[in-house]
Amino acid sequence: MIDLCVIPLGVGVSVSEYVAACQRVLNDAGLEHQMHAYGTNIEGEWDEVFAAVKRCHEVVHEMGAPRVSTSMRVGTRTDRSQTMNDKIESVELKLSSD
Amino acid sequence: MIDLCVIPLGVGVSVSEYVAACQRVLNDAGLEHQMHAYGTNIEGEWDEVFAAVKRCHEVVHEMGAPRVSTSMRVGTRTDRSQTMNDKIESVELKLSSD
Amino acid sequence: MIDLCVIPLGVGVSVSEYVAACQRVLNDAGLEHQMHAYGTNIEGEWDEVFAAVKRCHEVVHEMGAPRVSTSMRVGTRTDRSQTMNDKIESVELKLSSD
Amino acid sequence: MIDLCVIPLGVGVSVSEYVAACQRVLNDAGLEHQMHAYGTNIEGEWDEVFAAVKRCHEVVHEMGAPRVSTSMRVGTRTDRSQTMNDKIESVELKLSSD
Repeated sequence: MIDLCVIPLGVGVSVSEYVAACQRVLNDAGLEHQMHAYGTNIEGEWDEVFAAVKRCHEVVHEMGAPRVSTSMRVGTRTDRSQTMNDKIESVELKLSSD
Repeated sequence: MIDLCVIPLGVGVSVSEYVAACQRVLNDAGLEHQMHAYGTNIEGEWDEVFAAVKRCHEVVHEMGAPRVSTSMRVGTRTDRSQTMNDKIESVELKLSSD
Repeated sequence: MIDLCVIPLGVGVSVSEYVAACQRVLNDAGLEHQMHAYGTNIEGEWDEVFAAVKRCHEVVHEMGAPRVSTSMRVGTRTDRSQTMNDKIESVELKLSSD
Repeated sequence: MIDLCVIPLGVGVSVSEYVAACQRVLNDAGLEHQMHAYGTNIEGEWDEVFAAVKRCHEVVHEMGAPRVSTSMRVGTRTDRSQTMNDKIESVELKLSSD
């Protein structure tokens, strides 16, 4: 699972069209993903996920951004599988038991 | 607006109780926030937001984590105000016009 | 200890003058810091460090950037103190024992 | 160019042996890299760099960490090539002209 935040440089302050283009890349790749206000959670196998991240950089460059700076969190675990929803539910369960 | 991901070290693989404790800190601080699968979006004035982040570190240490490593994205803008929902809607508008 | 990477948006692709301005803020604050190719390590007490980070955002806005997006890693530990050099030496010791 | 910070979870507070293992992966891959106090700068072609990052996760899991959480900054640019040293020199030039 990763959390991705792509920032185009040299193209003005509005980045929503670049973010939208990245959402299309993730849709086309058939990856589970969920946008939030400061990035996008993506779930999938390592190679597929990073191929999509590379494609996002390519697409944002093709749209005219000479420079792209991305921040990413990447989580892997070998003890058990856990979906994006599992993680959120696990916290909410703790909170609801207050 | 910030995106916060607090990771306690030296306490095992399950971090949900620490994340839940941070959610309580944000609730107590009265800050707008929205958890996602790899962090939490927080909206508010600089000093209030960072006082809450500091409190998260303190609480996680008090719960027994000897070490805490957080990754954060921090966004400020002077041209106009934009809520967390505004950002998401702005992208969705671009996507729906496909 | 934190690792800070400040990115100004809406000002072109060259960000070195903004990074230089942030280095001056850190110098003026009297904080231990060390620049690398993708950010700056800063060592100090929580409140002083985050006051300097806030000042960096203010200065970059004053220089004309309407939007600033920063990525940060923040590490705290209660078990022992460890400087930036301690961390690097600890890894180098492991490597040299190969 | 990327900046990589790999954090093993569920293995105690000392992470230096895991960081050292990742340095060896980068050496074996023949990639230019430079460790700092809160991560490692890596320079190279996309596919080679991300193959090495994947190998870091695998190695850290093999060493016994059931969970790995990495934070990464990824920068690409199409306007010109710029090494890690170029970036630092560009800022130092600005500073020295004060």
